[in-house]
Amino acid sequence: MQVSFTPAELQAITQPKQVRGATTETVCGIGALGTAGPGELSFLGNPKYRSEVAATRASVVLLPVDYDGQPQPNQLFLLVDNPSVGLARICSRIEQLLWPKPAPGIHPSAQVGKGAQVAATATVGPLCVVEEGAVVGERTHLQAQVFVGRGAQIGDDCWLMPGVILAAECVLKNRVRLQPGVVVGSDGFGYEFIAGRHEKVPQVGIVLIEDDVEIGANSTLDRARFSRTVVGEGTKIDNLVQIAHNCTIGRHVILCGQVGISGSTTLGDYTVLGGQAGIGGHLSIGAKAKIGGQSKVTFDVEPGAYINGSPGIPYMLGQRLEVLHRKLPELFKRVDTLEKLLPKS
Amino acid sequence: MQVSFTPAELQAITQPKQVRGATTETVCGIGALGTAGPGELSFLGNPKYRSEVAATRASVVLLPVDYDGQPQPNQLFLLVDNPSVGLARICSRIEQLLWPKPAPGIHPSAQVGKGAQVAATATVGPLCVVEEGAVVGERTHLQAQVFVGRGAQIGDDCWLMPGVILAAECVLKNRVRLQPGVVVGSDGFGYEFIAGRHEKVPQVGIVLIEDDVEIGANSTLDRARFSRTVVGEGTKIDNLVQIAHNCTIGRHVILCGQVGISGSTTLGDYTVLGGQAGIGGHLSIGAKAKIGGQSKVTFDVEPGAYINGSPGIPYMLGQRLEVLHRKLPELFKRVDTLEKLLPKS
Amino acid sequence: MQVSFTPAELQAITQPKQVRGATTETVCGIGALGTAGPGELSFLGNPKYRSEVAATRASVVLLPVDYDGQPQPNQLFLLVDNPSVGLARICSRIEQLLWPKPAPGIHPSAQVGKGAQVAATATVGPLCVVEEGAVVGERTHLQAQVFVGRGAQIGDDCWLMPGVILAAECVLKNRVRLQPGVVVGSDGFGYEFIAGRHEKVPQVGIVLIEDDVEIGANSTLDRARFSRTVVGEGTKIDNLVQIAHNCTIGRHVILCGQVGISGSTTLGDYTVLGGQAGIGGHLSIGAKAKIGGQSKVTFDVEPGAYINGSPGIPYMLGQRLEVLHRKLPELFKRVDTLEKLLPKS
Repeated sequence: MQVSFTPAELQAITQPKQVRGATTETVCGIGALGTAGPGELSFLGNPKYRSEVAATRASVVLLPVDYDGQPQPNQLFLLVDNPSVGLARICSRIEQLLWPKPAPGIHPSAQVGKGAQVAATATVGPLCVVEEGAVVGERTHLQAQVFVGRGAQIGDDCWLMPGVILAAECVLKNRVRLQPGVVVGSDGFGYEFIAGRHEKVPQVGIVLIEDDVEIGANSTLDRARFSRTVVGEGTKIDNLVQIAHNCTIGRHVILCGQVGISGSTTLGDYTVLGGQAGIGGHLSIGAKAKIGGQSKVTFDVEPGAYINGSPGIPYMLGQRLEVLHRKLPELFKRVDTLEKLLPKS
Repeated sequence: MQVSFTPAELQAITQPKQVRGATTETVCGIGALGTAGPGELSFLGNPKYRSEVAATRASVVLLPVDYDGQPQPNQLFLLVDNPSVGLARICSRIEQLLWPKPAPGIHPSAQVGKGAQVAATATVGPLCVVEEGAVVGERTHLQAQVFVGRGAQIGDDCWLMPGVILAAECVLKNRVRLQPGVVVGSDGFGYEFIAGRHEKVPQVGIVLIEDDVEIGANSTLDRARFSRTVVGEGTKIDNLVQIAHNCTIGRHVILCGQVGISGSTTLGDYTVLGGQAGIGGHLSIGAKAKIGGQSKVTFDVEPGAYINGSPGIPYMLGQRLEVLHRKLPELFKRVDTLEKLLPKS
Repeated sequence: MQVSFTPAELQAITQPKQVRGATTETVCGIGALGTAGPGELSFLGNPKYRSEVAATRASVVLLPVDYDGQPQPNQLFLLVDNPSVGLARICSRIEQLLWPKPAPGIHPSAQVGKGAQVAATATVGPLCVVEEGAVVGERTHLQAQVFVGRGAQIGDDCWLMPGVILAAECVLKNRVRLQPGVVVGSDGFGYEFIAGRHEKVPQVGIVLIEDDVEIGANSTLDRARFSRTVVGEGTKIDNLVQIAHNCTIGRHVILCGQVGISGSTTLGDYTVLGGQAGIGGHLSIGAKAKIGGQSKVTFDVEPGAYINGSPGIPYMLGQRLEVLHRKLPELFKRVDTLEKLLPKS
């Protein structure tokens, strides 16, 4: 499978105000200015990268109309009102080619309960279950074998891929994309230890997923004990991530694969957690904090801090300690030498 | 979604022998004595917490009839024969409101194989598959899109949530609750390295899950090589946990999210493993041992021990070494100074 | 459930050229020469273990015809042209007993799209979805509730267990076995940060799984950004493993439970990764390298190296540093003593 565009096709999609240069390359990739190469498209989405345009090796570059540089040989500049919008149009075209929009309607094999409201423009694919009282918004796509529990609400333009489970009463806002096998609304892990047994504390809250969130395959998000587990607008979650009950994940957060967040923890906006990082319960991770992969965090983290390691410590300190740790054999020898020079008795 | 009870409703549910005080609060939460606040219910389930009752901020407190203290202002004491039983009645009522018991019967879209025995009081929901020879016990609920393999046996009052997979011949005893996407009975990971290839060792044992076990979303439990992988009575397992073939997990164990247990390992009763902890294969973890989050354990652990870290060491030793580790820069400087004071030559 | 064979049955299955000794034991297990006991079968698959045959406690041993030793009392030697082939015949018989080959055909509850090609010898079980243009090869078994996306291709003799999701355009070669809940072809985790938001980079590549690969329950493999995520021939992947987009996993690799591989990383042939190990992105792990459980690798690894720890370092160095780390309390005391003996002033 390959998607590619000729320069002429890209021009037709982006409708540039002005064109500079030309390329004989067919474009079959997209990359940042600094990394794109021949046969790829790049773009100037943020003015601060303006200086990188001159050196980019991309064959086609989307630029704002006020950009005044000239292309290199075999390079095409497309000057548009908003390069990000231009890029979005191209991406949208790629997705249309690869994932053609399904026809609206409810597949005859789907099981839709009484009182469920499915928008006329929505698609409910084969072997889906939509329980009673659930709401499915405009143009939302339940691909196949999806489960939508009693009273759950799904906004507009969402895409729930095969095998997704959205449990009762949970809420997805608009343009939420759930990769295959995601579970939203499993019970929080809460028990009281009574007379030698772990007695279940009913988990009767919900999960609320805000606009433009994407969640990776087989990730799990637990419903709150009594209130809400929340994932903020624009946050992106990778595969096999665990989010426990009563967490509040901020906006535009990045959670890489296999991250685990314990209960009642709050992550600020724009936090970034590397793969396999684990965060304890009842903590607050400040906005824009970074947590390295496989780190273990058991304390509150200041906004903008960079924590790394297991146990987690500030990144620069960790780097320094790691250097010294590897010099331990040398240090022991140095102390041996000192002791020989200076006998105790 | 919110579940709440007036003080009068709580009285009606718990049928107290005696009532002390009164509250104007509506109760919409449950908490331990030390953490519950206004608008929440608490309870004295274990006599050893009796001293915490006087200071609890809970609006309503379930107490044994022999409790002789007085409530604070705007606080209601309900004195019952057994506070734990009272609490269970309230929780049961909450669950009834939130998860009404489905009508018994087999949904017409479910696929039930020849010779499968489904109790008349059981519910087999939409798009479930029950293969031939499987047994589904009294009042057990297969919610939707559940798979029950050939010859598998499910006891009474179990609840298998959407997307659960119970593979052939595996056994669930009574009151087992499997959250969405749980896989019980995948093949153990066993190969023989023969002539440069990993040849599969057939995994022909089963998984046996005892009474009152709960397993979290998308967790996986492998069938034994020849015998049984066992999870003991009352054990609670969180989301995305991996239990390998031939493990024996004791009774009333707690396994937090993303824990991984390698093959043929035994966990004693009442062990507690923090999130993302990993235990090697063929090990024995003693009863009531605690393993910290993200710890790596590659050795047997004594009963009652507390191991932490990667690599795992006794908790107190780990805390002490961590303090010294952070003093390495200082220690190197001190040795530098000593060397200057005492030249080698 | 138990599978067992009498010595006579094993003789009938393996058709030995010669028989030595006899046993009264019924065989209900298989083990390596060094670990098998009474009631178990073992085999000499690799000549280098020849010296272990004399001491094995296995009741029945498969040996090459040129083996000249004698069995112990109550032990049966079966001499065959190729012991590995003999073992494979026995394993195959066990699997037939436990997992009888289903009748070919498409279950009436399965949903097969227009233009999908399902071989006449294939089995498409209950409530499977096979989208348009997908290909299902000879004798391949989609067990139940499996999803095969548009244009996906599955070779011969594959087994996709319940709840497996194979997304559009992805390719499985022959004899691939996917345990329950595996997701192949979820979107890679790729975003461009534009104007304060993470804009999705369409993931329009595929996943290609070569011959004889097995993947464990609920593991996830992301489709490439533009090209292919590849898993090489004979590789075995355990449960809850995450493989990110554009990775190239070599041949005959072993990935234990909960391993995570970040994007665009290459693993050489015969690499072995312990449980919960995490590998960073854009790295190269050389052939036959070993990575310890729960290790964190953020650098390229030489072929044959053995890396362990978080952060990962060469195994032997790590062992040495760990010993010294535990002697830190002693080292601090030794430096205290030196300082007392040698006052600064």
